[in-house]
Amino acid sequence: MRIHVYFTVPEAEPAVVQEAVVAVVDVVRATTSMVEALAHGARSILPTAATEDAVRLAGSLGREDTLLCGERKGVKIEGFDLGNSPAEFTSEQVSGKRLVWTTTNGTAALAAVREAPRILVAALTNLRAVSDALAESEQVVIQCSGRGNRFSIDDALCAGHLVRLLVAGKSAETDPEGPRLNDAARASLALARAVAPSAAFLATTAAGRALAEIGMAEDLEICAQVDRHAVVPRLVDQALTLDAGR
Amino acid sequence: MRIHVYFTVPEAEPAVVQEAVVAVVDVVRATTSMVEALAHGARSILPTAATEDAVRLAGSLGREDTLLCGERKGVKIEGFDLGNSPAEFTSEQVSGKRLVWTTTNGTAALAAVREAPRILVAALTNLRAVSDALAESEQVVIQCSGRGNRFSIDDALCAGHLVRLLVAGKSAETDPEGPRLNDAARASLALARAVAPSAAFLATTAAGRALAEIGMAEDLEICAQVDRHAVVPRLVDQALTLDAGR
Repeated sequence: MRIHVYFTVPEAEPAVVQEAVVAVVDVVRATTSMVEALAHGARSILPTAATEDAVRLAGSLGREDTLLCGERKGVKIEGFDLGNSPAEFTSEQVSGKRLVWTTTNGTAALAAVREAPRILVAALTNLRAVSDALAESEQVVIQCSGRGNRFSIDDALCAGHLVRLLVAGKSAETDPEGPRLNDAARASLALARAVAPSAAFLATTAAGRALAEIGMAEDLEICAQVDRHAVVPRLVDQALTLDAGR
Repeated sequence: MRIHVYFTVPEAEPAVVQEAVVAVVDVVRATTSMVEALAHGARSILPTAATEDAVRLAGSLGREDTLLCGERKGVKIEGFDLGNSPAEFTSEQVSGKRLVWTTTNGTAALAAVREAPRILVAALTNLRAVSDALAESEQVVIQCSGRGNRFSIDDALCAGHLVRLLVAGKSAETDPEGPRLNDAARASLALARAVAPSAAFLATTAAGRALAEIGMAEDLEICAQVDRHAVVPRLVDQALTLDAGR
Protein backbone atom coordinates (compact mmCIF):
# COMPACT_ATOMS: atom_id res chain seq x y z
CA MET A 1 0.00 0.00 0.00
CA ARG A 2 1.13 3.52 -0.83
CA ILE A 3 -0.35 6.32 1.22
CA HIS A 4 -0.19 9.91 -0.01
CA VAL A 5 -1.43 12.71 2.20
CA TYR A 6 -1.92 16.16 0.69
CA PHE A 7 -2.31 18.90 3.28
CA THR A 8 -3.71 21.44 0.82
CA VAL A 9 -5.70 21.27 -2.40
CA PRO A 10 -2.92 22.56 -4.71
CA GLU A 11 -0.61 19.78 -3.51
CA ALA A 12 -2.68 17.00 -5.11
CA GLU A 13 -0.67 15.13 -7.76
CA PRO A 14 -3.02 14.35 -10.67
CA ALA A 15 -1.07 11.27 -11.78
CA VAL A 16 -1.34 9.80 -8.28
CA VAL A 17 -4.96 10.79 -7.73
CA GLN A 18 -6.05 9.15 -11.01
CA GLU A 19 -4.97 5.75 -9.70
CA ALA A 20 -5.95 6.08 -6.07
CA VAL A 21 -8.83 5.62 -3.72
CA VAL A 22 -9.20 9.10 -2.25
CA ALA A 23 -10.51 10.07 1.17
CA VAL A 24 -11.40 13.77 1.40
CA VAL A 25 -11.11 15.34 4.86
CA ASP A 26 -12.57 18.58 6.20
CA VAL A 27 -13.03 17.94 9.91
CA VAL A 28 -14.22 21.45 10.78
CA ARG A 29 -16.82 21.01 9.43
CA ALA A 30 -17.82 19.98 5.89
CA THR A 31 -17.01 16.27 5.89
CA THR A 32 -18.16 15.87 9.49
CA SER A 33 -21.53 17.37 8.52
CA MET A 34 -21.74 15.23 5.36
CA VAL A 35 -21.18 12.07 7.42
CA GLU A 36 -23.81 13.29 9.87
CA ALA A 37 -26.37 13.94 7.12
CA LEU A 38 -25.96 10.59 5.38
CA ALA A 39 -25.83 8.66 8.67
CA HIS A 40 -29.14 10.33 9.53
CA GLY A 41 -30.85 9.15 6.38
CA ALA A 42 -30.24 11.84 3.77
CA ARG A 43 -30.76 10.20 0.34
CA SER A 44 -27.85 11.97 -1.29
CA ILE A 45 -25.64 15.05 -1.15
CA LEU A 46 -24.87 17.06 -4.27
CA PRO A 47 -21.75 19.19 -3.67
CA THR A 48 -21.47 22.37 -5.71
CA ALA A 49 -18.79 25.04 -5.72
CA ALA A 50 -20.76 28.28 -6.18
CA THR A 51 -23.85 29.44 -4.32
CA GLU A 52 -25.64 30.22 -7.60
CA ASP A 53 -24.99 26.67 -8.86
CA ALA A 54 -26.54 25.32 -5.67
CA VAL A 55 -29.65 27.48 -6.02
CA ARG A 56 -30.08 26.59 -9.70
CA LEU A 57 -29.60 22.87 -9.08
CA ALA A 58 -32.05 22.83 -6.16
CA GLY A 59 -34.58 24.66 -8.34
CA SER A 60 -34.28 22.16 -11.17
CA LEU A 61 -34.60 19.22 -8.79
CA GLY A 62 -37.80 20.50 -7.25
CA ARG A 63 -37.80 21.93 -3.76
CA GLU A 64 -40.12 19.38 -2.22
CA ASP A 65 -37.55 16.80 -1.19
CA THR A 66 -34.44 18.93 -1.71
CA LEU A 67 -32.67 21.00 0.93
CA LEU A 68 -30.22 23.81 0.19
CA CYS A 69 -27.20 23.59 2.52
CA GLY A 70 -24.07 25.65 2.82
CA GLU A 71 -22.01 28.32 4.45
CA ARG A 72 -19.80 31.24 3.63
CA LYS A 73 -17.29 32.18 6.32
CA GLY A 74 -18.94 29.57 8.53
CA VAL A 75 -22.39 31.16 8.48
CA LYS A 76 -25.49 29.71 6.77
CA ILE A 77 -26.10 31.29 3.38
CA GLU A 78 -29.15 33.55 3.40
CA GLY A 79 -32.25 31.80 2.15
CA PHE A 80 -30.72 28.33 2.53
CA ASP A 81 -32.43 25.61 4.57
CA LEU A 82 -29.37 24.50 6.49
CA GLY A 83 -25.82 25.75 7.08
CA ASN A 84 -22.74 23.63 7.68
CA SER A 85 -23.21 22.77 11.35
CA PRO A 86 -23.21 18.99 12.01
CA ALA A 87 -25.87 19.46 14.69
CA GLU A 88 -28.33 20.66 12.03
CA PHE A 89 -28.32 17.40 10.11
CA THR A 90 -30.74 15.46 12.30
CA SER A 91 -32.99 12.65 11.03
CA GLU A 92 -35.97 15.00 11.38
CA GLN A 93 -34.35 17.49 9.04
CA VAL A 94 -32.68 15.33 6.42
CA SER A 95 -34.16 11.82 6.32
CA GLY A 96 -35.16 10.95 2.75
CA LYS A 97 -34.00 14.31 1.38
CA ARG A 98 -31.56 15.30 -1.31
CA LEU A 99 -29.08 17.91 -0.06
CA VAL A 100 -27.57 20.45 -2.45
CA TRP A 101 -24.46 21.57 -0.65
CA THR A 102 -21.84 24.30 -1.00
CA THR A 103 -19.01 25.02 1.47
CA THR A 104 -15.85 27.08 1.34
CA ASN A 105 -13.14 24.43 1.46
CA GLY A 106 -14.78 21.02 1.50
CA THR A 107 -16.41 21.06 -1.90
CA ALA A 108 -13.22 22.51 -3.45
CA ALA A 109 -11.28 19.50 -2.19
CA LEU A 110 -13.88 17.11 -3.59
CA ALA A 111 -13.65 18.87 -6.95
CA ALA A 112 -9.84 18.72 -6.94
CA VAL A 113 -9.79 14.92 -6.81
CA ARG A 114 -12.68 14.28 -9.18
CA GLU A 115 -10.47 12.23 -11.56
CA ALA A 116 -9.99 9.54 -8.91
CA PRO A 117 -11.65 6.15 -9.59
CA ARG A 118 -13.11 6.10 -6.08
CA ILE A 119 -13.75 9.07 -3.78
CA LEU A 120 -14.78 8.71 -0.13
CA VAL A 121 -15.54 11.27 2.55
CA ALA A 122 -13.71 11.02 5.87
CA ALA A 123 -13.94 12.73 9.23
CA LEU A 124 -13.01 11.77 12.74
CA THR A 125 -16.62 10.64 13.14
CA ASN A 126 -16.26 7.79 10.61
CA LEU A 127 -12.54 7.08 10.85
CA ARG A 128 -12.68 3.31 11.39
CA ALA A 129 -15.28 2.81 8.65
CA VAL A 130 -13.14 4.70 6.13
CA SER A 131 -10.03 2.84 7.24
CA ASP A 132 -11.85 -0.47 6.67
CA ALA A 133 -13.00 0.71 3.25
CA LEU A 134 -9.43 1.63 2.29
CA ALA A 135 -7.75 -1.44 3.77
CA GLU A 136 -7.33 -3.38 0.52
CA SER A 137 -6.38 -0.45 -1.71
CA GLU A 138 -2.96 -0.37 -3.33
CA GLN A 139 -2.87 3.40 -3.62
CA VAL A 140 -4.54 5.67 -1.09
CA VAL A 141 -4.76 9.46 -1.18
CA ILE A 142 -5.91 11.42 1.84
CA GLN A 143 -6.82 14.88 0.55
CA CYS A 144 -7.09 17.46 3.31
CA SER A 145 -9.19 20.51 2.57
CA GLY A 146 -7.02 22.92 4.52
CA ARG A 147 -8.03 26.53 5.00
CA GLY A 148 -7.88 28.52 1.78
CA ASN A 149 -4.90 26.53 0.48
CA ARG A 150 -3.14 26.65 3.85
CA PHE A 151 -2.27 23.85 6.22
CA SER A 152 -4.97 22.97 8.73
CA ILE A 153 -3.93 20.90 11.75
CA ASP A 154 -7.40 19.45 12.37
CA ASP A 155 -7.42 17.89 8.90
CA ALA A 156 -3.81 16.75 9.35
CA LEU A 157 -4.71 15.12 12.66
CA CYS A 158 -7.60 13.24 11.07
CA ALA A 159 -5.35 12.19 8.16
CA GLY A 160 -2.73 11.03 10.65
CA HIS A 161 -5.17 8.88 12.60
CA LEU A 162 -6.38 7.37 9.34
CA VAL A 163 -2.76 6.61 8.38
CA ARG A 164 -2.25 5.11 11.84
CA LEU A 165 -5.18 2.72 11.38
CA LEU A 166 -4.06 1.78 7.87
CA VAL A 167 -0.47 1.15 8.95
CA ALA A 168 -1.60 -0.86 11.99
CA GLY A 169 -3.64 -3.14 9.75
CA LYS A 170 -0.65 -4.07 7.59
CA SER A 171 1.34 -7.13 8.58
CA ALA A 172 4.49 -8.28 6.82
CA GLU A 173 2.33 -11.09 5.46
CA THR A 174 -0.18 -8.96 3.60
CA ASP A 175 2.25 -6.23 2.54
CA PRO A 176 5.83 -7.53 2.48
CA GLU A 177 7.32 -4.14 1.67
CA GLY A 178 5.25 -2.45 4.33
CA PRO A 179 3.10 0.58 3.54
CA ARG A 180 4.95 3.42 1.84
CA LEU A 181 4.11 6.90 3.07
CA ASN A 182 4.82 10.23 1.43
CA ASP A 183 6.38 13.04 3.49
CA ALA A 184 3.02 14.48 4.55
CA ALA A 185 1.67 11.06 5.53
CA ARG A 186 4.68 10.57 7.79
CA ALA A 187 4.34 14.00 9.37
CA SER A 188 0.62 13.48 9.98
CA LEU A 189 1.34 10.10 11.55
CA ALA A 190 3.82 11.73 13.95
CA LEU A 191 1.12 14.26 14.83
CA ALA A 192 -1.48 11.53 15.40
CA ARG A 193 0.88 9.65 17.69
CA ALA A 194 1.30 12.82 19.76
CA VAL A 195 -2.28 14.08 19.81
CA ALA A 196 -5.56 12.26 20.49
CA PRO A 197 -8.62 13.88 18.91
CA SER A 198 -10.72 15.94 21.30
CA ALA A 199 -12.99 18.95 21.19
CA ALA A 200 -10.49 20.73 23.44
CA PHE A 201 -7.72 20.21 20.90
CA LEU A 202 -9.92 21.26 17.98
CA ALA A 203 -10.77 24.44 19.91
CA THR A 204 -7.10 25.47 19.79
CA THR A 205 -6.80 25.14 16.00
CA ALA A 206 -7.24 27.95 13.50
CA ALA A 207 -10.52 26.39 12.31
CA GLY A 208 -11.74 25.91 15.87
CA ARG A 209 -10.93 29.49 16.84
CA ALA A 210 -12.71 30.80 13.76
CA LEU A 211 -15.76 28.77 14.73
CA ALA A 212 -15.71 30.14 18.28
CA GLU A 213 -15.62 33.66 16.84
CA ILE A 214 -18.98 33.09 15.15
CA GLY A 215 -20.42 31.46 18.27
CA MET A 216 -20.39 27.89 16.99
CA ALA A 217 -17.70 26.29 19.15
CA GLU A 218 -20.22 23.67 20.29
CA ASP A 219 -19.99 22.05 16.88
CA LEU A 220 -16.52 20.81 17.83
CA GLU A 221 -18.08 18.29 20.22
CA ILE A 222 -19.50 16.36 17.29
CA CYS A 223 -16.45 16.96 15.05
CA ALA A 224 -14.19 15.31 17.64
CA GLN A 225 -16.30 12.18 18.27
CA VAL A 226 -14.19 9.40 16.82
CA ASP A 227 -16.25 6.62 15.19
CA ARG A 228 -19.58 8.18 16.03
CA HIS A 229 -20.89 6.60 12.81
CA ALA A 230 -19.95 3.48 10.82
CA VAL A 231 -20.79 4.93 7.40
CA VAL A 232 -18.69 5.82 4.36
CA PRO A 233 -20.02 8.49 2.03
CA ARG A 234 -18.90 7.92 -1.54
CA LEU A 235 -18.99 10.31 -4.50
CA VAL A 236 -20.48 8.72 -7.64
CA ASP A 237 -21.65 10.80 -10.60
CA GLN A 238 -21.33 14.02 -8.58
CA ALA A 239 -23.55 12.74 -5.77
CA LEU A 240 -22.50 11.52 -2.33
CA THR A 241 -24.37 8.51 -1.05
CA LEU A 242 -23.55 5.83 1.48
CA ASP A 243 -21.07 3.34 0.08
CA ALA A 244 -22.70 -0.05 -0.30
CA GLY A 245 -19.28 -1.71 -0.16
CA ARG A 246 -16.69 -2.73 -2.71
CA MET B 1 6.08 35.92 20.33
CA ARG B 2 3.97 34.68 17.44
CA ILE B 3 5.44 31.92 15.32
CA HIS B 4 4.05 31.19 11.87
CA VAL B 5 5.36 28.24 9.90
CA TYR B 6 4.49 27.96 6.21
CA PHE B 7 5.16 24.51 4.75
CA THR B 8 4.99 25.68 1.15
CA VAL B 9 5.66 28.93 -0.69
CA PRO B 10 2.02 29.65 -1.68
CA GLU B 11 0.99 29.47 2.00
CA ALA B 12 2.89 32.63 2.97
CA GLU B 13 0.52 35.34 4.24
CA PRO B 14 1.77 38.70 2.91
CA ALA B 15 0.29 40.70 5.81
CA VAL B 16 2.12 38.51 8.32
CA VAL B 17 5.39 38.36 6.38
CA GLN B 18 5.54 42.15 6.11
CA GLU B 19 5.80 42.47 9.88
CA ALA B 20 7.92 39.44 10.66
CA VAL B 21 11.48 38.30 10.92
CA VAL B 22 11.58 35.46 8.42
CA ALA B 23 13.79 32.38 8.44
CA VAL B 24 13.86 30.60 5.07
CA VAL B 25 14.50 26.85 5.20
CA ASP B 26 15.59 24.47 2.44
CA VAL B 27 17.49 21.73 4.25
CA VAL B 28 18.10 19.55 1.20
CA ARG B 29 20.04 21.50 0.10
CA ALA B 30 19.91 25.20 -0.76
CA THR B 31 20.00 26.82 2.65
CA THR B 32 22.44 24.21 3.99
CA SER B 33 24.80 25.06 1.12
CA MET B 34 24.33 28.81 1.62
CA VAL B 35 25.27 28.47 5.29
CA GLU B 36 28.25 26.38 4.26
CA ALA B 37 29.43 28.95 1.72
CA LEU B 38 29.19 31.96 4.03
CA ALA B 39 30.70 30.07 6.98
CA HIS B 40 33.63 29.27 4.70
CA GLY B 41 34.30 32.88 3.84
CA ALA B 42 32.21 33.65 0.78
CA ARG B 43 31.79 37.44 0.66
CA SER B 44 28.17 37.34 -0.41
CA ILE B 45 25.54 35.26 -2.17
CA LEU B 46 23.25 36.75 -4.81
CA PRO B 47 20.18 34.54 -5.23
CA THR B 48 18.47 34.66 -8.62
CA ALA B 49 15.44 32.79 -9.91
CA ALA B 50 16.32 32.07 -13.54
CA THR B 51 19.54 30.60 -14.93
CA GLU B 52 19.81 33.40 -17.52
CA ASP B 53 19.56 36.03 -14.77
CA ALA B 54 22.41 34.34 -12.95
CA VAL B 55 24.62 34.26 -16.04
CA ARG B 56 23.87 37.90 -16.88
CA LEU B 57 24.50 39.07 -13.31
CA ALA B 58 27.77 37.16 -13.04
CA GLY B 59 28.87 38.66 -16.36
CA SER B 60 28.12 42.20 -15.23
CA LEU B 61 29.94 41.70 -11.93
CA GLY B 62 33.10 40.45 -13.60
CA ARG B 63 34.01 36.81 -13.44
CA GLU B 64 37.27 37.24 -11.53
CA ASP B 65 35.90 37.04 -8.01
CA THR B 66 32.43 35.78 -8.89
CA LEU B 67 31.32 32.17 -8.96
CA LEU B 68 28.21 30.88 -10.73
CA CYS B 69 26.39 28.37 -8.56
CA GLY B 70 23.20 26.44 -9.03
CA GLU B 71 21.33 23.31 -9.92
CA ARG B 72 18.37 22.11 -11.91
CA LYS B 73 16.85 18.80 -10.74
CA GLY B 74 19.73 18.58 -8.27
CA VAL B 75 22.49 18.60 -10.89
CA LYS B 76 25.01 21.43 -11.44
CA ILE B 77 23.97 23.68 -14.31
CA GLU B 78 26.22 23.23 -17.35
CA GLY B 79 28.96 25.84 -17.49
CA PHE B 80 28.49 26.84 -13.84
CA ASP B 81 31.39 26.82 -11.36
CA LEU B 82 29.57 25.04 -8.56
CA GLY B 83 26.30 23.16 -8.10
CA ASN B 84 24.20 22.98 -4.95
CA SER B 85 26.16 20.40 -2.97
CA PRO B 86 27.22 21.67 0.48
CA ALA B 87 30.50 19.75 0.16
CA GLU B 88 31.51 21.98 -2.78
CA PHE B 89 31.52 25.18 -0.76
CA THR B 90 34.95 24.80 0.85
CA SER B 91 37.13 27.71 1.91
CA GLU B 92 39.42 26.94 -1.03
CA GLN B 93 36.56 27.38 -3.46
CA VAL B 94 34.59 30.26 -2.04
CA SER B 95 36.66 32.37 0.36
CA GLY B 96 36.47 36.03 -0.64
CA LYS B 97 34.18 35.29 -3.61
CA ARG B 98 30.77 36.56 -4.61
CA LEU B 99 28.40 33.70 -5.42
CA VAL B 100 25.62 34.19 -7.95
CA TRP B 101 23.19 31.43 -7.06
CA THR B 102 20.11 29.82 -8.55
CA THR B 103 18.29 26.76 -7.18
CA THR B 104 14.92 25.17 -7.85
CA ASN B 105 13.09 25.75 -4.57
CA GLY B 106 15.36 27.74 -2.25
CA THR B 107 15.58 30.97 -4.22
CA ALA B 108 11.82 30.88 -4.88
CA ALA B 109 11.17 30.83 -1.13
CA LEU B 110 13.55 33.76 -0.59
CA ALA B 111 11.74 35.70 -3.32
CA ALA B 112 8.33 34.92 -1.80
CA VAL B 113 9.18 36.64 1.49
CA ARG B 114 11.06 39.61 0.05
CA GLU B 115 8.67 42.11 1.66
CA ALA B 116 9.78 41.07 5.16
CA PRO B 117 11.78 43.63 7.16
CA ARG B 118 14.39 41.01 8.04
CA ILE B 119 15.15 37.77 6.18
CA LEU B 120 17.47 35.08 7.53
CA VAL B 121 18.59 31.75 6.14
CA ALA B 122 18.18 28.65 8.31
CA ALA B 123 19.24 25.03 8.07
CA LEU B 124 19.86 22.31 10.60
CA THR B 125 23.53 23.32 10.40
CA ASN B 126 22.91 26.75 11.95
CA LEU B 127 19.80 26.06 13.99
CA ARG B 128 20.94 27.46 17.33
CA ALA B 129 22.43 30.60 15.77
CA VAL B 130 19.16 31.35 13.97
CA SER B 131 17.15 30.63 17.11
CA ASP B 132 19.33 33.12 19.03
CA ALA B 133 18.86 35.69 16.27
CA LEU B 134 15.07 35.27 16.42
CA ALA B 135 14.78 35.13 20.21
CA GLU B 136 13.66 38.75 20.72
CA SER B 137 11.33 38.99 17.73
CA GLU B 138 7.63 39.57 18.27
CA GLN B 139 6.60 37.98 15.01
CA VAL B 140 8.53 35.10 13.47
CA VAL B 141 7.86 33.40 10.14
CA ILE B 142 9.58 30.16 9.22
CA GLN B 143 9.15 29.77 5.48
CA CYS B 144 9.83 26.26 4.26
CA SER B 145 10.79 25.86 0.62
CA GLY B 146 9.00 22.56 0.11
CA ARG B 147 9.29 20.63 -3.12
CA GLY B 148 7.54 22.37 -6.02
CA ASN B 149 4.82 23.79 -3.74
CA ARG B 150 4.42 20.47 -1.90
CA PHE B 151 5.09 19.63 1.72
CA SER B 152 8.65 18.53 2.46
CA ILE B 153 9.26 16.73 5.75
CA ASP B 154 12.96 17.68 5.98
CA ASP B 155 12.06 21.39 5.94
CA ALA B 156 9.20 20.76 8.39
CA LEU B 157 11.58 18.94 10.73
CA CYS B 158 14.03 21.85 10.66
CA ALA B 159 11.19 24.31 11.23
CA GLY B 160 9.97 22.19 14.13
CA HIS B 161 13.35 22.11 15.82
CA LEU B 162 13.60 25.86 15.39
CA VAL B 163 10.16 26.25 16.99
CA ARG B 164 11.26 23.92 19.78
CA LEU B 165 14.28 26.11 20.58
CA LEU B 166 12.21 29.30 20.40
CA VAL B 167 9.49 27.90 22.66
CA ALA B 168 12.05 26.54 25.14
CA GLY B 169 13.58 29.98 25.45
CA LYS B 170 10.30 31.59 26.50
CA SER B 171 9.52 31.81 30.17
CA ALA B 172 6.27 33.16 31.58
CA GLU B 173 8.35 36.13 32.69
CA THR B 174 9.51 37.23 29.23
CA ASP B 175 6.32 36.28 27.39
CA PRO B 176 3.33 36.18 29.76
CA GLU B 177 0.93 34.89 27.12
CA GLY B 178 3.41 32.28 25.97
CA PRO B 179 4.43 31.96 22.33
CA ARG B 180 1.49 31.62 19.94
CA LEU B 181 1.93 29.08 17.17
CA ASN B 182 -0.05 28.71 13.96
CA ASP B 183 -1.33 25.26 12.95
CA ALA B 184 1.77 24.40 10.93
CA ALA B 185 4.12 25.53 13.71
CA ARG B 186 2.33 23.18 16.11
CA ALA B 187 2.44 20.26 13.69
CA SER B 188 6.14 20.83 13.01
CA LEU B 189 6.81 20.98 16.75
CA ALA B 190 5.08 17.60 17.20
CA LEU B 191 7.29 16.23 14.42
CA ALA B 192 10.45 17.64 16.01
CA ARG B 193 9.55 16.08 19.35
CA ALA B 194 9.22 12.70 17.64
CA VAL B 195 12.21 12.85 15.29
CA ALA B 196 15.82 13.88 15.89
CA PRO B 197 17.66 15.11 12.81
CA SER B 198 19.97 12.53 11.24
CA ALA B 199 21.32 11.68 7.81
CA ALA B 200 19.48 8.35 8.09
CA PHE B 201 16.16 10.16 8.55
CA LEU B 202 16.86 12.60 5.73
CA ALA B 203 17.63 9.62 3.48
CA THR B 204 14.03 8.41 3.89
CA THR B 205 12.47 11.72 2.80
CA ALA B 206 11.32 12.58 -0.72
CA ALA B 207 14.21 15.06 -1.05
CA GLY B 208 16.70 12.54 0.30
CA ARG B 209 15.55 9.81 -2.06
CA ALA B 210 15.74 12.18 -5.02
CA LEU B 211 19.30 13.01 -4.03
CA ALA B 212 20.23 9.32 -3.79
CA GLU B 213 18.86 8.82 -7.30
CA ILE B 214 21.41 11.29 -8.69
CA GLY B 215 24.21 9.73 -6.63
CA MET B 216 24.51 12.52 -4.08
CA ALA B 217 23.20 10.89 -0.91
CA GLU B 218 26.48 11.74 0.83
CA ASP B 219 25.39 15.38 0.97
CA LEU B 220 22.88 14.40 3.64
CA GLU B 221 25.71 13.92 6.13
CA ILE B 222 26.36 17.66 6.11
CA CYS B 223 22.67 18.60 5.84
CA ALA B 224 21.92 16.70 9.08
CA GLN B 225 24.75 18.15 11.19
CA VAL B 226 22.92 20.27 13.75
CA ASP B 227 24.80 23.44 14.72
CA ARG B 228 27.79 22.71 12.51
CA HIS B 229 28.18 26.49 12.14
CA ALA B 230 27.28 29.46 14.33
CA VAL B 231 26.49 31.85 11.49
CA VAL B 232 23.29 33.53 10.31
CA PRO B 233 23.05 34.52 6.64
CA ARG B 234 20.87 37.57 6.15
CA LEU B 235 19.36 38.92 2.95
CA VAL B 236 19.92 42.67 2.53
CA ASP B 237 19.45 44.43 -0.80
CA GLN B 238 19.17 41.11 -2.61
CA ALA B 239 22.48 39.83 -1.25
CA LEU B 240 23.07 37.29 1.48
CA THR B 241 25.88 38.07 3.87
CA LEU B 242 26.65 37.04 7.41
CA ASP B 243 24.44 38.86 9.87
CA ALA B 244 26.50 41.19 12.04
CA GLY B 245 23.77 41.19 14.68
CA ARG B 246 20.76 43.35 15.33
